[in-house]
Amino acid sequence: MQLFCAAIDWGTTSFRIWLLSEGGSVLAERRSHEGMTVAAETGFETVLESHLQVLKAPASLPVVICGMAGSRQGWQEARYLTVPALLSEVVARAVHVDGPSRDIRILPGLARRDTKRPDVMRGEETQLLGAFSGTRTSGLACMPGTHSKWVTVGKRSVTDFSTYMTGELFGLVARRSILRHAVGDADHCDPGSSDFLEAVADAHANPADLSRLLFSIRGGQLLHGREVTSSYERLSGLLIGSEIGAALANGDADGPVHLIASGKLAGLYGAAFASLGLEIEDIDADEAVLKGLYTGARHFWPTMNTQADYGQIKA
Amino acid sequence: MQLFCAAIDWGTTSFRIWLLSEGGSVLAERRSHEGMTVAAETGFETVLESHLQVLKAPASLPVVICGMAGSRQGWQEARYLTVPALLSEVVARAVHVDGPSRDIRILPGLARRDTKRPDVMRGEETQLLGAFSGTRTSGLACMPGTHSKWVTVGKRSVTDFSTYMTGELFGLVARRSILRHAVGDADHCDPGSSDFLEAVADAHANPADLSRLLFSIRGGQLLHGREVTSSYERLSGLLIGSEIGAALANGDADGPVHLIASGKLAGLYGAAFASLGLEIEDIDADEAVLKGLYTGARHFWPTMNTQADYGQIKA
Repeated sequence: MQLFCAAIDWGTTSFRIWLLSEGGSVLAERRSHEGMTVAAETGFETVLESHLQVLKAPASLPVVICGMAGSRQGWQEARYLTVPALLSEVVARAVHVDGPSRDIRILPGLARRDTKRPDVMRGEETQLLGAFSGTRTSGLACMPGTHSKWVTVGKRSVTDFSTYMTGELFGLVARRSILRHAVGDADHCDPGSSDFLEAVADAHANPADLSRLLFSIRGGQLLHGREVTSSYERLSGLLIGSEIGAALANGDADGPVHLIASGKLAGLYGAAFASLGLEIEDIDADEAVLKGLYTGARHFWPTMNTQADYGQIKA
Repeated sequence: MQLFCAAIDWGTTSFRIWLLSEGGSVLAERRSHEGMTVAAETGFETVLESHLQVLKAPASLPVVICGMAGSRQGWQEARYLTVPALLSEVVARAVHVDGPSRDIRILPGLARRDTKRPDVMRGEETQLLGAFSGTRTSGLACMPGTHSKWVTVGKRSVTDFSTYMTGELFGLVARRSILRHAVGDADHCDPGSSDFLEAVADAHANPADLSRLLFSIRGGQLLHGREVTSSYERLSGLLIGSEIGAALANGDADGPVHLIASGKLAGLYGAAFASLGLEIEDIDADEAVLKGLYTGARHFWPTMNTQADYGQIKA
């Protein structure tokens, strides 16, 4: 297939690159830990070119990027768009990276500039661009992660969003708080376990109670000999349940919640929503970000059709 | 004055010893970082005797202890009393430490054995014993700390209690989360600052919203250039406000909240309660634990009156 462009999701601690065909198919991909933190030291162009070289991408191949590479501490700042913002503006307001001869574009993030509860996202807007396309134009999206985003989309415009620190709190509490004694070396949460699902229900019913529910894991260890895996699953369930409870109290779920996730988190959040009797629409986060990046690329390079067949390049 | 006994508050990371007169006056005191964690390595008796030696306490001086020294990982286990529990039982169920020739007693902690929300305390029960004495017999107590306790006391009996991980979450979020960039090296919160008090009000109004309110500190830094001290004060206010909001939604404050605190936390919580228009009764935590330990000592050694004058001992 004809090689069209490279698409990159450049996070704080992760780097993912795909080579895409004109039709948006994935021809090749690579992942590394050279996120913004590493690349800020090594050099963004150095990291990018090293991967393109391994993939045997031609020097003329254009590149579209989303994520932290566009932050102020990144490669080149792509200033936040203020919400409400049409998702098409994420493409229209992309920045061109100065310097490299290669054509490189970075998509901007979104900001909620309210002084009471300012908020930001970088990377998720590109998933939203991919997810809210075709016949899907509106809805409430849940995007779980280190900093989970809950986003209200109406007519392909992001009207509001909130960040919950769920994943980061999970890591800190599991590994660095007093609860580390209860959690031990456990590192797997079974989405179907009763410990996980009961914790989801407990915290969802009263998300304000999170702090004391968390400490009950310590009590369970000391008084009832609760096992480490059970403690780990309860901790995961409490944090996810309280996020869902708080977010649904704040946002309007007029219809199903659009769960944009992949991997383990997709399984955990999916099980949590199902156990709470909440309808969801599953959207693969990896597919969504790829589709968003591809949408940008088609806009930037609508007539580009000059790249070679990738099968021949690789050979 | 006649030396009567030594009283010790032996926490996880702190050790405090007082020499008390027959009337309960403090004749001498010392503090160190030889809490349970250190003492479990060094040896509890070694730590205790080293301090008693510096204080020139006679070999026959009896010692009353509260806190983590009575935990399973401590010196000798003083098993939790199950609530509801009369505060007088904390004294009646103290354990005598086996081995040393010196008469040493450790007061037990309290446990809430409910399987849904098990909870434990060690040390605070002794503050409660001291605080709920004389004409004060009932009320809701707020005991701020690494693990804040909210306790319902009726007729000198602890009927229920809850632990909120406020102090520990503050430390983790301020120093180890993404918010560390916003907080920087700030380490002082002015209880009268508008940043602190506004955050208290925001989180108290909606304690379920804590996680996204926390992330708004990151947004404030990125979008509005919020200063590090302002971020630190807002973080402190959010955690304290959400604790008060959640706890008052759960507990019955029939009358003033009894704030049992000392030092910086007394100032911060006092200002928070006042700004929320909530009536409190201030109780000094140091005085309360001393009074509780002394109450125990008077029970264990009601007729002991044979110790020398401490002025002569020191000379």
